[in-house]
Amino acid sequence: MTERIPRDKKNDYTETMAQTRRDFVYDKTGSTFHHVSHYDFEPERTAGNVENFIGVAQVPIGLAGPLLVNGEHAQGEFYVPMATSEGTLVASYNRGMRLLHAAGGARVCIVDDAMQRAPVFIFEHARQARDFGAWVEENFGQIKAAAETTTRSGQLRNIEQYAAARMRYLRFNFTTGDAAGQNMVGKATYVACEWIMENYSGIVRYMLSGAMDTDKKHSQLNTLHTRGKRVIAEVILPNALIEKTMGVSAKNLFKARAITQVGGFMAGSINTGAHSANGIAATFLATGQDVANVAESSAAVTYADLDDDGNYYFSITIPSLIVATYGGGTGLPTQQECLNLLGCNGQGKVRKLAEIIGGTVLAGELSLMSAVLTGDWVTSHDALGRNR
Amino acid sequence: MTERIPRDKKNDYTETMAQTRRDFVYDKTGSTFHHVSHYDFEPERTAGNVENFIGVAQVPIGLAGPLLVNGEHAQGEFYVPMATSEGTLVASYNRGMRLLHAAGGARVCIVDDAMQRAPVFIFEHARQARDFGAWVEENFGQIKAAAETTTRSGQLRNIEQYAAARMRYLRFNFTTGDAAGQNMVGKATYVACEWIMENYSGIVRYMLSGAMDTDKKHSQLNTLHTRGKRVIAEVILPNALIEKTMGVSAKNLFKARAITQVGGFMAGSINTGAHSANGIAATFLATGQDVANVAESSAAVTYADLDDDGNYYFSITIPSLIVATYGGGTGLPTQQECLNLLGCNGQGKVRKLAEIIGGTVLAGELSLMSAVLTGDWVTSHDALGRNR
Amino acid sequence: MTERIPRDKKNDYTETMAQTRRDFVYDKTGSTFHHVSHYDFEPERTAGNVENFIGVAQVPIGLAGPLLVNGEHAQGEFYVPMATSEGTLVASYNRGMRLLHAAGGARVCIVDDAMQRAPVFIFEHARQARDFGAWVEENFGQIKAAAETTTRSGQLRNIEQYAAARMRYLRFNFTTGDAAGQNMVGKATYVACEWIMENYSGIVRYMLSGAMDTDKKHSQLNTLHTRGKRVIAEVILPNALIEKTMGVSAKNLFKARAITQVGGFMAGSINTGAHSANGIAATFLATGQDVANVAESSAAVTYADLDDDGNYYFSITIPSLIVATYGGGTGLPTQQECLNLLGCNGQGKVRKLAEIIGGTVLAGELSLMSAVLTGDWVTSHDALGRNR
Amino acid sequence: MTERIPRDKKNDYTETMAQTRRDFVYDKTGSTFHHVSHYDFEPERTAGNVENFIGVAQVPIGLAGPLLVNGEHAQGEFYVPMATSEGTLVASYNRGMRLLHAAGGARVCIVDDAMQRAPVFIFEHARQARDFGAWVEENFGQIKAAAETTTRSGQLRNIEQYAAARMRYLRFNFTTGDAAGQNMVGKATYVACEWIMENYSGIVRYMLSGAMDTDKKHSQLNTLHTRGKRVIAEVILPNALIEKTMGVSAKNLFKARAITQVGGFMAGSINTGAHSANGIAATFLATGQDVANVAESSAAVTYADLDDDGNYYFSITIPSLIVATYGGGTGLPTQQECLNLLGCNGQGKVRKLAEIIGGTVLAGELSLMSAVLTGDWVTSHDALGRNR
Repeated sequence: MTERIPRDKKNDYTETMAQTRRDFVYDKTGSTFHHVSHYDFEPERTAGNVENFIGVAQVPIGLAGPLLVNGEHAQGEFYVPMATSEGTLVASYNRGMRLLHAAGGARVCIVDDAMQRAPVFIFEHARQARDFGAWVEENFGQIKAAAETTTRSGQLRNIEQYAAARMRYLRFNFTTGDAAGQNMVGKATYVACEWIMENYSGIVRYMLSGAMDTDKKHSQLNTLHTRGKRVIAEVILPNALIEKTMGVSAKNLFKARAITQVGGFMAGSINTGAHSANGIAATFLATGQDVANVAESSAAVTYADLDDDGNYYFSITIPSLIVATYGGGTGLPTQQECLNLLGCNGQGKVRKLAEIIGGTVLAGELSLMSAVLTGDWVTSHDALGRNR
Repeated sequence: MTERIPRDKKNDYTETMAQTRRDFVYDKTGSTFHHVSHYDFEPERTAGNVENFIGVAQVPIGLAGPLLVNGEHAQGEFYVPMATSEGTLVASYNRGMRLLHAAGGARVCIVDDAMQRAPVFIFEHARQARDFGAWVEENFGQIKAAAETTTRSGQLRNIEQYAAARMRYLRFNFTTGDAAGQNMVGKATYVACEWIMENYSGIVRYMLSGAMDTDKKHSQLNTLHTRGKRVIAEVILPNALIEKTMGVSAKNLFKARAITQVGGFMAGSINTGAHSANGIAATFLATGQDVANVAESSAAVTYADLDDDGNYYFSITIPSLIVATYGGGTGLPTQQECLNLLGCNGQGKVRKLAEIIGGTVLAGELSLMSAVLTGDWVTSHDALGRNR
Repeated sequence: MTERIPRDKKNDYTETMAQTRRDFVYDKTGSTFHHVSHYDFEPERTAGNVENFIGVAQVPIGLAGPLLVNGEHAQGEFYVPMATSEGTLVASYNRGMRLLHAAGGARVCIVDDAMQRAPVFIFEHARQARDFGAWVEENFGQIKAAAETTTRSGQLRNIEQYAAARMRYLRFNFTTGDAAGQNMVGKATYVACEWIMENYSGIVRYMLSGAMDTDKKHSQLNTLHTRGKRVIAEVILPNALIEKTMGVSAKNLFKARAITQVGGFMAGSINTGAHSANGIAATFLATGQDVANVAESSAAVTYADLDDDGNYYFSITIPSLIVATYGGGTGLPTQQECLNLLGCNGQGKVRKLAEIIGGTVLAGELSLMSAVLTGDWVTSHDALGRNR
Repeated sequence: MTERIPRDKKNDYTETMAQTRRDFVYDKTGSTFHHVSHYDFEPERTAGNVENFIGVAQVPIGLAGPLLVNGEHAQGEFYVPMATSEGTLVASYNRGMRLLHAAGGARVCIVDDAMQRAPVFIFEHARQARDFGAWVEENFGQIKAAAETTTRSGQLRNIEQYAAARMRYLRFNFTTGDAAGQNMVGKATYVACEWIMENYSGIVRYMLSGAMDTDKKHSQLNTLHTRGKRVIAEVILPNALIEKTMGVSAKNLFKARAITQVGGFMAGSINTGAHSANGIAATFLATGQDVANVAESSAAVTYADLDDDGNYYFSITIPSLIVATYGGGTGLPTQQECLNLLGCNGQGKVRKLAEIIGGTVLAGELSLMSAVLTGDWVTSHDALGRNR
């Protein structure tokens, strides 16, 4: 007979229950939790964050910085907490931050902002689906009103429409204040859909997700139309600075990119940069973000240019950075401390946090790019006696 | 003048230095770290895991299970530790595990296994690149020998080749024992490349990565040719069981899939399932995996079938699950306890861990699928009086 | 010394010059053109269609049909001219048309319609690019007015915007009357861009194409947002009809799809159907379309469903069908005859043509699908004594 | 009552039957075929090319060249026949050929060659599918022998394997002599599959295509692993030559590419070049290729580099160029003349033809690239007084 993990509906988030569960597991498996049980907050604080709480994962935090950010919300120097267990990650980002600092900092901005839920409506025939699409456009105001009855901070910005077969796929785009907003927009879209069902006849049925929100999944659609914040971080690096600190010329950096772009294109890679997921995962973890969103947030588009003086413009565009300063894990104790460290605790700070992460990611790209080239490009065999 | 974060080369991984850094940050920003500094191990243990250590992120762990696994390495019931701050995640996976249990458990296996580093060799002309490709094939034995001088557990399995312009992109596939292996294969490939440079003339230069390893990045290439473990988890659910526990028929589940497949295809989604990133991120975090690898591990392919009796076959294929039971964060204290709980600590346990995660992911798919359909598909308006 | 092909600016489109060029080639290569020179129209008619005219390719035309179409513009039976040199193609489409006819015809409609040119504007910084985007939105009326000065039939419908780095990619969507419209929208967009350059300061430079129009290239963007006509063709096939004419049950057709969808997804295929390019290329060629547009028009999304009585709904969505009844090759002699045959010559017939091609493509899908399954699925070895 | 198109099994490919069908259509629709009926060969010649023959499409052919090719099979100057109805196409390719000629010609080679049929085998469980994969590898010799019983010119080169769920997707790669080979490999694979069915137990069933051959459909898999010929055409253009003939510097060409690569990446474009489908469609049509294969052949990867002297290396890789000099439309009268013109008629000429098309495509890329930049890049507004 299988035994289920002990629960106690009324007192589930108590130390007693946490201990009861640890004891249960010990009975079943002999496993002990001396470290997992070492937390310094009341289990009650995890209500809304986890079920069947037994303790914590302790993940090392290293500090990188100062990161100099010239953003619209984040300005000045930041010491960035990065939670990771991968050696050299913090050091590498730190090195990139040093380079960025010497170049005057990362220029960062947010150019788009939307969180989605994407229901699908099914009809008898394609023409009905098309006509429904026109009706949705005409009745956007009322749909918006219905959706927004469920939330104070969420606003329905627009509805994208996609057509195939006898379905109409709608993609509701919300702004969600300081929250990441997946739950908020799910609820709001549900209410909007129910309003639609009451006010439009001929719908055979609908599903709250037709898989075009691509929650926890990268999609080309996200790269095109954003999910969460669309963040662009950029810098102009003087050639002399690159040569001195990276041991490689701007020109060679630029030329090397053409080669990796071909490789990435053939591979069907979703990111033309080096390793943005590293910086994103580490800052997400430290600041209480949902690390499963690395799935979406790991997409990126990089771009570089050379001016006539050999200065190197480099930027990374993160089309689907999903961040919050409210809700989810942001209210947990260590996570709060890390948000405080960045000055990102409290209302209206989510864009500041997004910019800091954008700058961090930019630092990491510059650092790894440099490492790859100094290791291989420059010291590589020059069989034909020419530097090309 | 910017001040750098204090370091001490000799004694960097000491409590003293951790405190020095926390004091430094306090001086600079006023931020305190009462919770972050609450860990129960010697900072020395984080050497190799992090730089500029200041403390830990405490991330709640919930328990799901028992997960019944019928694997080749994992067999029986498992209580699965999931580190997350997203409410309902553990509950949802738990519910799926219950369903799986009732159906006799998740059948799981690993069908491929490889970790890559993908250098690119550049020539004067395309024909030289092609001829080099032939040489690499002929000299695989020696290249393999060179690569394997650097590692005891890594083995060079094969080298894929891709051609574009005057470049030859090689993709070295290694098996890496209990480690995830990114560093191991980087070093081994570097040595192999240097051997190649000494033994083949006409190479203009090479780069250790031509972006076809797609490290920390999803790519179609990973979906095709695997990165890490390729894990398949499958189950046959009797229709009666689905109807009873999920409130939806197997047939409707099957039909609904056709609609979400169209949505996902139009979106250009990298995952035809629901939310595998959730289960992967939570188990990765608990067991000391590199959560940045959610970028790659979040890809998935689902498949369903109905037999004549209405039984529902469902499976999820995870083509790039990157896991380790050695190295990285797997040796840290709470992470060790979680590995122990799963019986995945010690040599030769990495495949067992991969199978357990595969089963966990399967449970989560079944659970969310059910929630979407009972919420929307079945209760949806049936305007035309027919159930289709 | 290389000799160039003879031209005569004033009289280039004359029989004399055609003969001069054929003689020239004979002198150079010994090649003769007894068949190529066998055309029955004045070379003058090819002015605007080709340069350095020497004759014609004679491509066999076969007839398929009658195709029964229930469209919004095409209604009734059509005999479809298909120009091809691939044996069985016409026969296969013919067979599908018979099935469609028995099922009451193909229901076809057009759900979207747009032709694009997509310039990119480059700025100093990302914020400037973003601000420019807002300005474009505010000044859409004037931009539209500028664009439309260049064309009588083209109308600027909307401008999509995409952001990366310090660029703003605009995608101008036009309706183009009976023409395919690539040239028309190129010119109109150019004039609009020049108007923008005069009225907005701070643009470093612009390019008329930033590669987001994806002319002569498939893109996911086309699948999402249409290029040319977005055509949906659908039919409901009674199970008895399928079994009788195809020798396979609706249920098995439906189940087989789940397997090919997985294969196509792993392959990264741009079309979830069977071979729409065949029908599109053959009708394009017969009716004077630009066959290079098969590149874009070959994308497709199929969808199937079963109702409780076992009836099979099947549809194909062609997101980027580029057709014209005016301009390009539509005015040439044999092409005119084929347009006449379909009743698609003259003003306002382009949507009718698109619907006929949509129906044709649907017929071909049903036919090949059937062939694959009767050959393999049904007769396949049933080792385990069960039909699943 | 619907009337079917007249057929006569015994005498279907006669002038009488062609006329009978034209008369039939005239009766039904009033349409006449004065031009379509103007061909200069016996209808018997179209047996195997078309069914229900009624006549021909006459498509204008223009001549471009001389194209100077430095290939392994094609060497010297070629006058290239291009069948098209799109004005300026021939002129544009012609211009690119002039530039190529001045630069010493296009260097072209074929680096891979394979035609596929990709069956899928379905099992009870994933492990059985995996085990079957191992068996296929071990028994490759016998499978190859079985496949090759059906063909004299086709050879089974290797079998790729892809795993998902309880399926094993095999991708049979053949070389096919002078033919494109789709039919040949279909038949050979079928026989191989039947051999497998007889010699391996436990297969529930198989389908001759599991959609991983992606016939008539582009796929990322084709870009990675080739379909038809993988052709690379390349050239080094001295900066002075570019500036003189194109009015733009090599450096600006190189820099502009970085911008279009970003646009193409966001769009999810399958081709990083400009318009290879144009050159491919026009030469395909003239030489009797299957123009439906433009679907696959339109994919491309471009690459550029600058050397220290400012010389511009440019190349285009066509990963799935499907060409034949035997079979299909290659034996038709005008098509034969065009093959003769290129010296590509007769045995062993298919690679020569592929190289010539490769060179043609390269010419077109250079020409359009130039046009875009001189029109827009160079003359663009330089608001900030600097050339960057």
